[in-house]
Amino acid sequence: MSPLDAPVQAPSSAPEVLGRCRELVRPALAEAVGRLHPWVGEMAAYTFGWCEVGGAPAVAPGGKGVRQALAVLGAEAAGAAGRAGVAGAVAVELVHAFSLLHDDIMDGDATRRRRPTVWKAYGTGPAVLAGDALFALAVETLAVEPGGAGAVRVLSAALTDLVRGQADDLLFAARPWTGAERVSPKEYRAMAEHKTGALLGCAAALGATLGGAPAATVAALDEAGRALGVAFQLVDDVLGIWGDPAVTGKPVHGDLRERKKTFPVLAALAAPGPAARRLAALLDSPGETEAAAELVEELGGRAAALAEARRHTATARAALTAEPLAAGAAGELRCLLDFLVARDL
Amino acid sequence: MSPLDAPVQAPSSAPEVLGRCRELVRPALAEAVGRLHPWVGEMAAYTFGWCEVGGAPAVAPGGKGVRQALAVLGAEAAGAAGRAGVAGAVAVELVHAFSLLHDDIMDGDATRRRRPTVWKAYGTGPAVLAGDALFALAVETLAVEPGGAGAVRVLSAALTDLVRGQADDLLFAARPWTGAERVSPKEYRAMAEHKTGALLGCAAALGATLGGAPAATVAALDEAGRALGVAFQLVDDVLGIWGDPAVTGKPVHGDLRERKKTFPVLAALAAPGPAARRLAALLDSPGETEAAAELVEELGGRAAALAEARRHTATARAALTAEPLAAGAAGELRCLLDFLVARDL
Repeated sequence: MSPLDAPVQAPSSAPEVLGRCRELVRPALAEAVGRLHPWVGEMAAYTFGWCEVGGAPAVAPGGKGVRQALAVLGAEAAGAAGRAGVAGAVAVELVHAFSLLHDDIMDGDATRRRRPTVWKAYGTGPAVLAGDALFALAVETLAVEPGGAGAVRVLSAALTDLVRGQADDLLFAARPWTGAERVSPKEYRAMAEHKTGALLGCAAALGATLGGAPAATVAALDEAGRALGVAFQLVDDVLGIWGDPAVTGKPVHGDLRERKKTFPVLAALAAPGPAARRLAALLDSPGETEAAAELVEELGGRAAALAEARRHTATARAALTAEPLAAGAAGELRCLLDFLVARDL
Repeated sequence: MSPLDAPVQAPSSAPEVLGRCRELVRPALAEAVGRLHPWVGEMAAYTFGWCEVGGAPAVAPGGKGVRQALAVLGAEAAGAAGRAGVAGAVAVELVHAFSLLHDDIMDGDATRRRRPTVWKAYGTGPAVLAGDALFALAVETLAVEPGGAGAVRVLSAALTDLVRGQADDLLFAARPWTGAERVSPKEYRAMAEHKTGALLGCAAALGATLGGAPAATVAALDEAGRALGVAFQLVDDVLGIWGDPAVTGKPVHGDLRERKKTFPVLAALAAPGPAARRLAALLDSPGETEAAAELVEELGGRAAALAEARRHTATARAALTAEPLAAGAAGELRCLLDFLVARDL
């Protein structure tokens, strides 16, 4: 049989890629969570959608598992087996869960994925503790890996960025809509890169590091993940105002109703002229959400967010061709990129 | 000049040892804290007693600095210069500050060292964030050290223990004074070893690791620090009930007034006979603190705590002679041990 006669393997769809990576990572993630103090372990399992409050098994929707997939694909892109990236995948999923637990406390969010948040279900103190435990477990997971020193460095840089991004995000809420103290779109982008991009970049970089990739490949995958993270956040910002409630599970104009300082709003406020001042006045008044959404769109906020997302998607794409990567994994990384952001642009 | 004619150097007192180590570590600790997000850095500086809320400089009492001293002395005990242990000292002080910040939230404590706790002064969300930032900074501090892989492993094991100890401590509060579900003195000791001992052991072990000590020396210093930590907690438990309020800064019988499940009380409750049942009844009634304190003492709770502390002090002493250590550092470690616990026994 000549190579030309070999059966053509259809490229995997993004849900298939995510599912394959989740299957590969799940046993190690469950094993790690199983090593936690039982009480803390239950809160962790609840966060992952594996159980209800009290411990009864559940099949609640977890996240899409983008971070773990990036770690597995990062290892494969470096020419290693996907399992080489599993410790990195476990670490980033644990860090992601830690950040959700603590961010929900800081933001006062009462529900996540249509269930009570951990602090609502178990109390603030226990939720703080469970987050700490997940954080410690993530570090331990990499620290005990043979050759994990580089991996711990990669993770620790992302943790620092993550906390910095969350600090900026919290402080943005208290700043005015206009004047010298207003939040610029550029500041917002930096916050999103720290808060969301860093961990996605870290995921891909960890996989590559554990897969034995050279520094340039690690850096390229880090850049691709970071850019993907920023693009993802920007698309999320657009959906947070104009998304279909039936799809997003959030109320119409939800982010605007909560007066969140997201990119479309900040870009609209940065437009010159009296309309931007009118928008600021609307945002300072109660209600007026519908009118504000219209004005944000008129002032080009939505278009600016989508353009910025496209720029970051292009950056991610370019990073994936900057260094030689295993073709299959590179294809699956592009497929994820399309699935997560490009299809909406 | 024969060696016998050499001027005799008086051994340093414990406050001198603590002061010398603090001086050595302070610049690196300040530099690390200075790399934090400014808002988070202010909360960290407030925790260390370096500033007031708002950032104005302060000279509020920080801790004694036992952990940083153990790290410096651990390096010196391994025959290295004290500065070899400085990164370890910084990491353990950051972790200690992180744990105080988060524990104060979990325990609802409003004051620490006669000042409002961080969550009281800055809010719960910001205090959660500041703790996370200190945690991340601790890991980063060791991760970027040349040869820091072993050090990160040592720290990460202590972090896991710390969180486990805090989980048990929180759960103890909800358990009854009597019956099958009561907290045994043994469980309490394990909790204290995790919550307090692990980080002190980690401090000494980190110093030794960074100072290039062989594994057996690292293990011996870890054991000494752990045992010191447990002894320190037990002495603290005794002072928490019978300490002089003028010295402890806490009300008479403070821990008993708050119905804290500390070793003396648990040991008293474990005594056979009707008096222990009478004590449990007193503890379940409001007030009655004076009578309960007397009964805990009659039932041998105070003596049992002090005997247990002496056992752990002896363990720490023995660990310090189990492996060859540099004589000067070993002497200073014994001096710290006496200062912190033995003088009260």
